[in-house]
Amino acid sequence: MKINRYVDISTIDREAKKDYIDRHSPFVHCEASAKAGEKFTVTVKMGDEYKHPDDFDHYIAWVQIWNGENMLAQTNFTAGAMGNQPAHAEVDFKIVPQKNLKLTAMAFCTKHGLWQSEEVVVEVG
Amino acid sequence: MKINRYVDISTIDREAKKDYIDRHSPFVHCEASAKAGEKFTVTVKMGDEYKHPDDFDHYIAWVQIWNGENMLAQTNFTAGAMGNQPAHAEVDFKIVPQKNLKLTAMAFCTKHGLWQSEEVVVEVG
Amino acid sequence: MKINRYVDISTIDREAKKDYIDRHSPFVHCEASAKAGEKFTVTVKMGDEYKHPDDFDHYIAWVQIWNGENMLAQTNFTAGAMGNQPAHAEVDFKIVPQKNLKLTAMAFCTKHGLWQSEEVVVEVG
Amino acid sequence: MKINRYVDISTIDREAKKDYIDRHSPFVHCEASAKAGEKFTVTVKMGDEYKHPDDFDHYIAWVQIWNGENMLAQTNFTAGAMGNQPAHAEVDFKIVPQKNLKLTAMAFCTKHGLWQSEEVVVEVG
Repeated sequence: MKINRYVDISTIDREAKKDYIDRHSPFVHCEASAKAGEKFTVTVKMGDEYKHPDDFDHYIAWVQIWNGENMLAQTNFTAGAMGNQPAHAEVDFKIVPQKNLKLTAMAFCTKHGLWQSEEVVVEVG
Repeated sequence: MKINRYVDISTIDREAKKDYIDRHSPFVHCEASAKAGEKFTVTVKMGDEYKHPDDFDHYIAWVQIWNGENMLAQTNFTAGAMGNQPAHAEVDFKIVPQKNLKLTAMAFCTKHGLWQSEEVVVEVG
Repeated sequence: MKINRYVDISTIDREAKKDYIDRHSPFVHCEASAKAGEKFTVTVKMGDEYKHPDDFDHYIAWVQIWNGENMLAQTNFTAGAMGNQPAHAEVDFKIVPQKNLKLTAMAFCTKHGLWQSEEVVVEVG
Repeated sequence: MKINRYVDISTIDREAKKDYIDRHSPFVHCEASAKAGEKFTVTVKMGDEYKHPDDFDHYIAWVQIWNGENMLAQTNFTAGAMGNQPAHAEVDFKIVPQKNLKLTAMAFCTKHGLWQSEEVVVEVG
């Protein structure tokens, strides 16, 4: 089974391939540092520049947020939750870190498989 | 199987019971109106005044957001995501409504079962 | 939010309604007794006499197995896992009971909402 | 994020390492061939020779079954479903194949991360 990984799309020539990679890649958005024991918001958002379909036979079925080798949470979507129109599937997880975080997101497209984000490090003090 | 429902805790005398009901109840927080075809944030948050444990043998394992009889999304949590301390488990779902919404949240506590929120109506125009 | 419950379809006249109720109802199939501490198979199967579509916009997205107020497991399906043809969505959960069980299944159809099975009691000795 | 893969434990000397690898590895068990359009049982079972704990802070939280890059189904377990004793977490998925299958299982241990099975090919005719 193949796990697809984000590639910097500015290094890619073909528009269709930029679009393909970007819209399938989960991105982790959060502050670079957090306070131990306090609520911390981690957004997982699909795509940066390009939107992904929300068709019944082609949609983002789930995203996961991992801290190192530990999965913190998984959100499953029903097709149509994005109004059956192209969108950036997105969810804000609220976690409470106690130590530094190494966050990675995974996402599953029902047509194009499993995608892994780049890792985001958060200093927790 | 019993589905527990929120009861206005101001009508309840016993402090322990207020705490029990409040911390197990999912609440739907969002704007009262939304624009059709645009991203709309729906927060599901456990408890209003009281926090719920995040112990390995006692935590909020998942929340769901429903629009009428259609489940839009479900978030599963791993115990410890809230730092193993009492917290309001919480997630922001980003949906794209096309018509009026009747939102209900469901939540599952690994010790105290299934809980249903009150319904929140959103005008979509 | 409405939770639909199984009704004995032999009491129902209209063929279309028999079909609607039966194919949306999860049934719990298992032995009537189990040995404490040993593996025990619990099958959750959708429908008894009628099959449910497995279309992208209309399928059984998940089933859950509950013991009293405790959810033991949930299986999520991707549309197409049943070959995009009418079928009885089905899963065998293997659990290890320590005490008597009161099993209930829940199921979610992406068009027709949430359905609850009748309760099945298992003597565990 | 690391994805752990099964290694033939007969090639490993240290008993503790054999145990560690075996009990965390999902195995796909099924017939080598299937009939197109008919129900086909695919068992995902954790470990072959060694059992995994079912402790609240250390258990198999979910398993997934993939066909190539398409996830067919995911089962989430609540800690305690295996009686809080060491066991082989296991689930039988019933799928309906239309074409040859390349099955892979993934599993998540709440202490030791994500594990991928070897691929099992099924001829569908």
